[in-house]
This record gives sequence, structure tokens and C-alpha cells, in this order.
Amino acid sequence: MNLVTIIGSVAAFLTTIAFLPQTLKTIREKNTDGISLHMYTLFTVGVFLWLIYGLYTVDIPIILANLVTFGLAMTILILKIRYH
Amino acid sequence: MNLVTIIGSVAAFLTTIAFLPQTLKTIREKNTDGISLHMYTLFTVGVFLWLIYGLYTVDIPIILANLVTFGLAMTILILKIRYH
Repeated sequence: MNLVTIIGSVAAFLTTIAFLPQTLKTIREKNTDGISLHMYTLFTVGVFLWLIYGLYTVDIPIILANLVTFGLAMTILILKIRYH
Repeated sequence: MNLVTIIGSVAAFLTTIAFLPQTLKTIREKNTDGISLHMYTLFTVGVFLWLIYGLYTVDIPIILANLVTFGLAMTILILKIRYH
């Protein structure tokens, strides 16, 4: 694995796993005041489209990363709507 | 431009621009209670690495998308630290 692939893999991992602490914080605190509903609506749709893109191009890393991110972002979006 | 490229372009646009409403909301309301410091730390580092990856592979869409996202995510991170 060369340096560029390592950088891309770490980047993909971080931008995916980053949503886990936000999801846990929102579930724990039930405080979504500061969170933007518009952000998570746009972002969740965007990540869903990345998932479709990954399926079309049969790109496993894109499929896996966006499957996880979609689950986390969708959870935050549902909690935001619920505690709005 | 075929369908797959269109889907990827719209996905990239949405997951980039999604951070604009969060940035504006945080600037306007100065309320970062519900926002996870860990998320934006991990995410900003991840997006920065995507930027490095894009520069290495000379991939203009990846460079542009992550340059915008980095600016927005970094702004939210700074505001979160400031109003913590």
C-alpha cells in the first residue's frame, strides 16, 4: 500500500467515524439545539447518493464508508427532528 | 456527462454545501452545546487529509470539494472551541 492510498484510507476512515461521537452525544444528551436541520438533511441525501454512486461503480470502500456514514447521519437527522 | 457522473457530482456538491447552513447557524446563534467537539476535530483532520490526497492525485473535484468543506468545518470547530 503506497503513501497516497494510506492517506486516502485514513481520510475516509476519519470522515466516516467522525459522526459516531456526534451520534452518541445526541443520543445521550438529547440536545439538538445547536445542530442544523438543513445540514443533516442535505448531508444525508448527499451521502445516500454517494452510496448509489458506489453501488453503480462497484467501489467497495465508497460503499462501506457511506453505508456507515448514512446510518450515523440519518440517526442524527431523526433525533434532530424528534427533539426539534 | 453520464448518469453515474451526475450522481457523483450531486453527491459531492450536497456533502460539501451541507456544512454551510451549520456554519451560518453557529455564527448567528453562537450555540454549540449540541455540537460534538470530537466530531469536528476528527472530521476536519479527515477532510484535510482528503485535500492532501486530492493534491497528490491531482484530482480537481476532490481538491475543490474538500477545500470548501475544510473551510466550513474548521470554522465550526473554531466556534465550538470558542463558545465551549
